Amino acid sequence: MSLNWKNIADAVRPVDTALYDVAQAHLDSLTKPRGSLGRLEELACRLFAISGGKTPLRADRAVMYTVAGDHGVTEEGVTLYPQAVTRQMVANFLGGGAGINVLCHANRIDLRVVDAGCAGGPYAPHPLILDRRMGDGTANFAQGPAMSRETCVRALEVGMALAEDAARDGYDCVGMGELGIGNSTSAAALYATYFHIAPEDAVGPGAGLPRGGLAHKAAVIRRAFAANATAHEGSDPLDKLAAFGGFEIAVKAGLVLGCAALRLPLVVDGFISTAAFAAACALCPAAAGYGILSHCSAEPGYAAAVAALGGFPPLLPLGMRLGEGTGAALAIPLLRSAAAVYNSMATFAEAGVDSAS
Amino acid sequence: MSLNWKNIADAVRPVDTALYDVAQAHLDSLTKPRGSLGRLEELACRLFAISGGKTPLRADRAVMYTVAGDHGVTEEGVTLYPQAVTRQMVANFLGGGAGINVLCHANRIDLRVVDAGCAGGPYAPHPLILDRRMGDGTANFAQGPAMSRETCVRALEVGMALAEDAARDGYDCVGMGELGIGNSTSAAALYATYFHIAPEDAVGPGAGLPRGGLAHKAAVIRRAFAANATAHEGSDPLDKLAAFGGFEIAVKAGLVLGCAALRLPLVVDGFISTAAFAAACALCPAAAGYGILSHCSAEPGYAAAVAALGGFPPLLPLGMRLGEGTGAALAIPLLRSAAAVYNSMATFAEAGVDSAS
Repeated sequence: MSLNWKNIADAVRPVDTALYDVAQAHLDSLTKPRGSLGRLEELACRLFAISGGKTPLRADRAVMYTVAGDHGVTEEGVTLYPQAVTRQMVANFLGGGAGINVLCHANRIDLRVVDAGCAGGPYAPHPLILDRRMGDGTANFAQGPAMSRETCVRALEVGMALAEDAARDGYDCVGMGELGIGNSTSAAALYATYFHIAPEDAVGPGAGLPRGGLAHKAAVIRRAFAANATAHEGSDPLDKLAAFGGFEIAVKAGLVLGCAALRLPLVVDGFISTAAFAAACALCPAAAGYGILSHCSAEPGYAAAVAALGGFPPLLPLGMRLGEGTGAALAIPLLRSAAAVYNSMATFAEAGVDSAS
Repeated sequence: MSLNWKNIADAVRPVDTALYDVAQAHLDSLTKPRGSLGRLEELACRLFAISGGKTPLRADRAVMYTVAGDHGVTEEGVTLYPQAVTRQMVANFLGGGAGINVLCHANRIDLRVVDAGCAGGPYAPHPLILDRRMGDGTANFAQGPAMSRETCVRALEVGMALAEDAARDGYDCVGMGELGIGNSTSAAALYATYFHIAPEDAVGPGAGLPRGGLAHKAAVIRRAFAANATAHEGSDPLDKLAAFGGFEIAVKAGLVLGCAALRLPLVVDGFISTAAFAAACALCPAAAGYGILSHCSAEPGYAAAVAALGGFPPLLPLGMRLGEGTGAALAIPLLRSAAAVYNSMATFAEAGVDSAS
């Protein structure tokens, strides 16, 4: 039986946090001072708990889903780049020239580009692209919901199916990133509504909006909250995702849920992907233990989200703000390293090394 | 002509910092918002300058030198583990079970274990080990110099020759780490004497010294400064390295100089390796541009060293404190990623993507 909106809440079981201690006890038996591999040990514990305690830990085969979609809110002048750049950059993905292409290649990650609804109609068939279009860009959420609840559920189920594809194809872990001019406005609105942050404290420059544009971006979100008052003021997380999300964000939220149900470690990129992760956790709190935050976004609002999501701060503070999944791609070698430590280091007893007490 | 103590100062040319701007101009032409790959771009600029402007940038073939040596200062009771653990851990390296073994394997790095002078005599021949012994452990520097100036020069030249081996074998970059019970006391003394830090502010728990041991560790360094007053109070960096260094630290300082002379990027591990890097920079300031600090040590004194060495803060704040080169091993995939971005991303013009002016 495949995953869907009706069965997902039952399918996602919270990670058994007692497994963190089981994993740490094993790590403490290995030939190194206790805790001396720092966050790599924390990551190994998390991988162990995600797998349900199954060893060896695996992160070798990795797939990256870079999900693209357009945003009606670009009509409001909230971006540095014109909407056409989404389509141009998808073409760049297909040509192999974008950041995510070269970082996936350099780090042995298979790339899938998902068209969740770019403006301008479907792409010609191409081995890298998956047609999962929800429409020709979302509606302008400054005037009403970005999409209907039905469309949002459909997007979530598309994401769940992508997770099932990854499991079926034998991948050990999944990365996610995105492309979509305007999506930092959507993500900021989601942070603001899920975590009760003022729009002014949630918006940042995104791909490079000049400082003067931030107040306008926040004002657009305030208008969106007025135009979608029931969603914003209510407590239904699906209403909020439909009102303020993007097609690519809703697909990624579904991907989080699917990976959680299938016990696949899911590596979250930066600001936009963390908004999708936050939406998934709002829809299904048990999903929180399956996400691994990769790189630390400098956008305001991100730190509040990390605190609210709890537990596992991002691994890499590299000052990145490209999206596409580029931060997630850089973190995947750390998962492999953590798994290798757990699986292959000798214990003090095996190696005949004196342990410190 | 091979590198040696007499010719090294001429052989190391400072990196041409104008090349950073040349590299940044290329990065700014690639299909991403300017600067949006953060420290990965900074790393690409550094690789470009290290190579002298030669492209494509290369970091694919990597070798890790894990250099081991014993320290007479362990007589003073400054460590949690007994000195015998150095020898036991070298055996663990040769058996393939240590952290550095599995992290090198997971990250496609060739490992070489260098015996720079472990107590207990030479090891039996083994494919992984290089016999470069300076003695059977250093002398106790609380009572006089750890080694003579002549031995220190010999150790530096051993390190230079390791760099030449790496270049001859076609490696694109070099990592360095170490093993040696007692070496965090040696490293703290070097930080204190090179950077004029009080011993109390330089010492940390190393591999796990309990809090009560820190005052004793600092007191031992104060005694060492009294016993080696000329070296400590003088300004000859070689005197300081001979007085307070270890065989493995001096070999690594030579490795830094050799890599700088040969324009090989050198990835520095944590607290101990950074002391070797600091010694190399004191001996030959032009070497500073060739080192890449990998992971951020929590030992006191490290932050002061990073500030003094200038320019390039460590890439990974993963709370690690194992040594062996484990932090350097985790950073090497970032070098490869930075090179891939520089070499292979499409420009705005090539991809037909609108640039944001």
